[in-house]
Amino acid sequence: MKGAVIHGARDVRYEERDEPKIVESTDAIVRLSATCICGSDLWPYRGINPTKEPTPIGHEYCGIVEEVGRDVATVGRGQFVIGSFFASDNTCPHCKAGYQTSCEHRQLVGGAQAPLLRVPLADGTLVATREVPAPDMIPSMLAASDVLGTGWFAADAANVKPGKTVAVVGDGAVGLLAILSARQMGAERIIAMSRHETRQRLARVFGATDIVTERGDAGVARIKELTQGVGADSVLECVGTQESMQQAIGVARPGGYVSYVGVPHDVQLDGQKLFFTHVHLHGGPAPVRRYLPRLIELIESRTIDPGKVFDLTLPLEKVAEGYRAMDERRAIKTLLRV
Amino acid sequence: MKGAVIHGARDVRYEERDEPKIVESTDAIVRLSATCICGSDLWPYRGINPTKEPTPIGHEYCGIVEEVGRDVATVGRGQFVIGSFFASDNTCPHCKAGYQTSCEHRQLVGGAQAPLLRVPLADGTLVATREVPAPDMIPSMLAASDVLGTGWFAADAANVKPGKTVAVVGDGAVGLLAILSARQMGAERIIAMSRHETRQRLARVFGATDIVTERGDAGVARIKELTQGVGADSVLECVGTQESMQQAIGVARPGGYVSYVGVPHDVQLDGQKLFFTHVHLHGGPAPVRRYLPRLIELIESRTIDPGKVFDLTLPLEKVAEGYRAMDERRAIKTLLRV
Repeated sequence: MKGAVIHGARDVRYEERDEPKIVESTDAIVRLSATCICGSDLWPYRGINPTKEPTPIGHEYCGIVEEVGRDVATVGRGQFVIGSFFASDNTCPHCKAGYQTSCEHRQLVGGAQAPLLRVPLADGTLVATREVPAPDMIPSMLAASDVLGTGWFAADAANVKPGKTVAVVGDGAVGLLAILSARQMGAERIIAMSRHETRQRLARVFGATDIVTERGDAGVARIKELTQGVGADSVLECVGTQESMQQAIGVARPGGYVSYVGVPHDVQLDGQKLFFTHVHLHGGPAPVRRYLPRLIELIESRTIDPGKVFDLTLPLEKVAEGYRAMDERRAIKTLLRV
Repeated sequence: MKGAVIHGARDVRYEERDEPKIVESTDAIVRLSATCICGSDLWPYRGINPTKEPTPIGHEYCGIVEEVGRDVATVGRGQFVIGSFFASDNTCPHCKAGYQTSCEHRQLVGGAQAPLLRVPLADGTLVATREVPAPDMIPSMLAASDVLGTGWFAADAANVKPGKTVAVVGDGAVGLLAILSARQMGAERIIAMSRHETRQRLARVFGATDIVTERGDAGVARIKELTQGVGADSVLECVGTQESMQQAIGVARPGGYVSYVGVPHDVQLDGQKLFFTHVHLHGGPAPVRRYLPRLIELIESRTIDPGKVFDLTLPLEKVAEGYRAMDERRAIKTLLRV
C-alpha cells in the first residue's frame, strides 16, 4: 500500500509502505474511512522535533475493522471504530481513573496517514459506533479521534461549567473545538483569542461570544476589561508555547482554572509567579478514550458537527500539499480521503 | 510597647516600637493573647529574603479586640478574634470566590510579634469566637491564624477526600497540620515524608499512617512501592523548594492532585515534564479566612488540637531565642507568650 512517510523537515512523501499485519493477539487492523493532519504533526514537519529516519506519520483515524487478533473480544470485522493516538488497555489503575493516555501499557499509534492501520490493545482503545455512519458524518467521527477529544479535555480540565466565563487561547483546530466543547458544557461567555478572520468566523459558529484580537499583555488587558477586572473562570491553553501559557495564566481569575493540552515546547513556569496567581493548572495528553462514547453519541445525534473544522479536503496522495497548506496557515486542518 | 523587630540576617531584637493606632476607619486594634514564629519568618531571618531596614515582624495572631474604627460593624471591643496574614475585604469577587488572599484590597498584616496589633479591614479579616476561649485552647486558636489554615488549604487544594491516599512532603508545622487536615477530610492513608524522630511522632499523632524517611528519587520510589506503583491521589507540598516540588509531582498518580502552599523559592517547572505527569496543580497563599469559621468550630468542640504543633513556648522578650531554636531545628514551632 501507499501512505505518508516523513523524511525530514518539510519532506513528507506519499510512498510505498508495508501493509500492517496483526502482530500481537490484541491488535486490530482498521481500513481507514478518512485520516487527517494534526497541528502536532507540524512540529516534526517544521523540523522543531527532528526526524532521525524515514517514519510513517499520522495518528488520527476512524474506519472499518478489517481483522482482529484472537484475543480481541469487543470489536470485530465490519464494525466502524474510532480510537485515540495512544493505545491503552483501559483496565489499569490509570485508565480506570480516566487517564488512558497515561496507561501502564500505552503505545503510540503511528502511521495513520494511510489506507490501513494497526491498532494495538484494540479492546481498550477502539470504540465502535452503533452502525456505519453516513458519509457526511465521517469528518466529525474523525475529529473525535484527537482534535475534538483534545478540545473537550481542555474544557473539562479547565472545569468549564454552566454559566461560566471561558477564554480560549489558540485558534487552531483544537482551540476551535475547545470552544465547541465549552459551549456544550454550558459556558455562558466564551472569549476566543484569534486574529485570523476565517478562524474567527468558525469560532463564532462553534459558540464564541467574544473575539479578542490582541495578544500578550494587550490580550490579557483586554480580557480583564471584558470581565470587569476579574479574569476568566476557565482558560483553555491550546497552543503550547511560553507566550500562550503566560497569556492563559494571566487571564485567569484567582482561583480560576487553566488547562493546557498542546505539548509545551520550551515552556518554563516560575513557581513563585504561578503561586501568586492562585490558578488551578491541569493538562497533559488528552485522554480521548474517556470521552469517545459521549462524543460519538453527540455526533450520531447530530448535536455537534466538529467536522466543520476541516477546511481543506485532499486525496491521501496529495498529503504533502496538505502539510504545506497547514504550515502556511492556508488551511486550519486538512482531511485526507483514503 | 516592646515587640520584635528584624534588623537583618539572624538579627531579631525585642525593642521599643510605636503602639499601633487606628489609621483607617475600618481598622481594629487587637491585644494579642499569644503570637508565634512562622517557618516563612525564617526566610528573612536566614537572609534569603533580604531585610532593607529594621522592620516589625510576625503575622500570626489571636486576641481580644481593644478598639475598632468607626466603620467596623461585625467585631467589637472585648471579643476574641482570629485573622489571617493578609487582611481582606471579604466582599470583592476574589473574596467571594474564596480566595481572600487575592482580595482586590488585600494588605499584609505585619508586626504581630508584639502585645498589640493593627488589623486593617477588620470586618472582612477577623472572625470572632463564640466566647473567649479557655487558656489551654489559645495555642490551637493561634495555629488557625496561619499554619493550620495553610495546612487545611494544602489538603483542600489537593482534593483530599474520604478513602484517598495522601502524601505530605515537608514535616514542618504546616506539613504536620496538613496531615491533621487530611485526616479530618477522611483520607484513608496518609504518608508523611519525614526523617526527624520528634516530627514523625507528631505526624503519627495527627494521623499519619506511614512514614517515609527517604528523599528525592528514593522517596518517590518508596511511595510508588507503598501504592502498588500507582502513586498518591493527593500530594501536599509544604516546603517550597525545587527538590520538594519535584518530589511532590513525582509521587502523584496521573490525574492526581498536587497542592503547594509555601512560597516557592527558585522553583522552575518544566512545562513538558509537567504535561506528561498529568497532575492537577493548585496552590498559593492560603486563603485562611475562607476556612476560619470551620476551623474555630473544630477547635471549640475539641475535635482537633492543632496547638500541639508548638513544642517550644517562650515569653515574647525571648523572641530571638525562639528564632534560633527554629533555625537550628531544635523546635518545630515557637509560641510566644505576650
